[in-house]
Amino acid sequence: MSTYLSEADAGKRIMSRCDELGSISEPGEGVTRLYLSPEHRLAAEVLVRWMQDAGMDARIDEAGNVVGRYHSVNGGGPYLVTGSHMDSVVNAGRYDGPLGVLTSLDCVAVLGNQGRRFPFGIEVVAFADEEGVRFRTTLAGSRAVTGRFGEDLFAAKDANGVSLPTAMREFGLDPAKVHLAAHLSDQVIGYVEVHIEQGPVLQAANLPVGIVTAISGQTRAVIKLKGAANHAGTVPMGMRHDPLLAASEIVLEVERVASSFPNTVGTVGSLKTEPGVINVIPGDVSLTVDLRSQADCDRNAAFAELGAAFELIAARRGVRLEIDKILDLKSCPCAPSFISQIESAVEGAGVRLLHLPSGAGHDGMAMSELTDIGMIFVRCKDGISHSPDESVTTEDVAVGAAALLRFIENFQGNQ
Amino acid sequence: MSTYLSEADAGKRIMSRCDELGSISEPGEGVTRLYLSPEHRLAAEVLVRWMQDAGMDARIDEAGNVVGRYHSVNGGGPYLVTGSHMDSVVNAGRYDGPLGVLTSLDCVAVLGNQGRRFPFGIEVVAFADEEGVRFRTTLAGSRAVTGRFGEDLFAAKDANGVSLPTAMREFGLDPAKVHLAAHLSDQVIGYVEVHIEQGPVLQAANLPVGIVTAISGQTRAVIKLKGAANHAGTVPMGMRHDPLLAASEIVLEVERVASSFPNTVGTVGSLKTEPGVINVIPGDVSLTVDLRSQADCDRNAAFAELGAAFELIAARRGVRLEIDKILDLKSCPCAPSFISQIESAVEGAGVRLLHLPSGAGHDGMAMSELTDIGMIFVRCKDGISHSPDESVTTEDVAVGAAALLRFIENFQGNQ
Repeated sequence: MSTYLSEADAGKRIMSRCDELGSISEPGEGVTRLYLSPEHRLAAEVLVRWMQDAGMDARIDEAGNVVGRYHSVNGGGPYLVTGSHMDSVVNAGRYDGPLGVLTSLDCVAVLGNQGRRFPFGIEVVAFADEEGVRFRTTLAGSRAVTGRFGEDLFAAKDANGVSLPTAMREFGLDPAKVHLAAHLSDQVIGYVEVHIEQGPVLQAANLPVGIVTAISGQTRAVIKLKGAANHAGTVPMGMRHDPLLAASEIVLEVERVASSFPNTVGTVGSLKTEPGVINVIPGDVSLTVDLRSQADCDRNAAFAELGAAFELIAARRGVRLEIDKILDLKSCPCAPSFISQIESAVEGAGVRLLHLPSGAGHDGMAMSELTDIGMIFVRCKDGISHSPDESVTTEDVAVGAAALLRFIENFQGNQ
Repeated sequence: MSTYLSEADAGKRIMSRCDELGSISEPGEGVTRLYLSPEHRLAAEVLVRWMQDAGMDARIDEAGNVVGRYHSVNGGGPYLVTGSHMDSVVNAGRYDGPLGVLTSLDCVAVLGNQGRRFPFGIEVVAFADEEGVRFRTTLAGSRAVTGRFGEDLFAAKDANGVSLPTAMREFGLDPAKVHLAAHLSDQVIGYVEVHIEQGPVLQAANLPVGIVTAISGQTRAVIKLKGAANHAGTVPMGMRHDPLLAASEIVLEVERVASSFPNTVGTVGSLKTEPGVINVIPGDVSLTVDLRSQADCDRNAAFAELGAAFELIAARRGVRLEIDKILDLKSCPCAPSFISQIESAVEGAGVRLLHLPSGAGHDGMAMSELTDIGMIFVRCKDGISHSPDESVTTEDVAVGAAALLRFIENFQGNQ
């Protein structure tokens, strides 16, 4: 590129490209760009072109990811990988995913514009399937990059019954070649991602960016409580076995226990009463528990404490309790040396340091199987994501880009 | 009737007729006998015949009730009315309603068999529509007897769109003549009903029968709580406005407040979470409150206390609260002189006295507009009603019949 790219204008450039990429969507409210869809194809082609414009070797890989390489001073790797994902949920915003891809791309464009190269190359990746909405998959794009695009993914089907391999072929990919998307671990020296926070912490702290300590581990469970359905008018209060009273104590216990551990959250998202009639004491209640923590030891201790508390509540209320743990996903810590290098970069951008865990999942969880990871969160309005109301400011995006650029410029590998 | 009817065998006779009447049902599990249905017609005709066998002038009245008169020594009224209802819910048991009708009928049969008459006549009524299942009506049969079969009932339609007047005509009734079912208040000197308890109190007290103090008043309300739906992983516990946490406190508050008033029960039968997804903090919760008490002053005080508590909870949690009161039904007290005469009858049957309110509604609520009322509850297994599992023992039914017979024999009117 011949035009001078001012670092100060990075925010504007990235915001403008978020808008442009956001216009590639299924019709309807917000952005809908699903894995292996025509919109995915179009977005990938636009990204390849932008990467090429920024001086990168770019291609759509065998899993549908877009991979652009900005080579080292020696003309090759190893590569520091940076990026995020290009797919979205249904009726999404413009920033969840694309902000990280386009911030990484702009950093490389600035470096290319200045003619600067490093002893390591930089690879910008736009992962193809982080949200996993179409095939109910998880991190299919980044799993392909790490060589873990497995049989479970090939068996997946979308809501119309289209299998993932069929969709790959329709997209122009050969499912038999997906292993070629895998990176060799000695060619990758780290993964760093910029992403919107999707929570309210940075806004409350009045900070544009924050440093992610870990992607939280998750425990999910379904709790079933069985009492005795009966007439709401005829059973004295002391003679009831009301599972909703037990459930209410359980909901409050989830709050109490989660609040007692650091960087831990617990949520009951769904609660159902059966028969669910105004004049009948419920006979059955089911509810969900979603528990996340930066530290697996805290999460496991909290879940054990909850289990014991639930047993006591059920016994005291005379209702039957069933706890079905349906997910147990380990925490994925950011590498300490990446955290400290991101700290330097954020401080260098003149921003007070704030550390926080990521309660949401990210491609870094897959990438951590291959290499060390780090993440920078950018403040988003009211913590809203997965909605057309998702919003970031140009100023905050510029700070995120400045921090990422400083991180890359000063990158020392994992010491 | 020429055969001697032993009082000691009353339980067996009544149980046997409960079985016989219970066989008149729509096909399917349990008893289904809805207002103005062919099963209603058949049951009514059987009851007319049984009443005539017991020496009564019996007929199906203009609302579909069966009314049998056992005249006074003077050959007419006024009448002590006794009975219950013959309609059922869907998949009901055999005793809710029929037990009271057939106990009353058996008492008159015994008296007739002994050739005994009193200065007052006895009228046995099988009300046609207490459950109100078909037309979502309430107490249509007894309201007709009290002269309060109003326009709201004529406007009612069943699930197939059949209007109540059309159904009356199909049944063989003339809707224009329903006012003729009304009783003159000077021809009625009281209403007494035997009914299964539909609750667990008598079983817990190990007693066959109990004395009803009042049919509880009811307050029903729908509570809506609006918070902020958000990502279950990204919002720290202290920054949430989770309406389910507020709802859980409200559910427990309903228990606490209802328990603090005598003869009062409070129930949350339905609670719904929106969007109701495991990994999303709910944005909206709605729940129902059903509050019943023997004393209207207690019920109103409890509801006021709950309203104030709900406001505090919602304010503390930062969620929006809406309270929509959808029903406010006054308590219907049994007449003190009826209660004391029932006490004498129960004591005379050798049973320890236990007083309890009726948390469920009964035809007595309508009849109390016309005359004084009293009720005798018969123990039922585990408090179960509105189910094929509804169960009573022959022994308990015999005690109920003995108590009703003594009440009638010694009836002194309302002193």
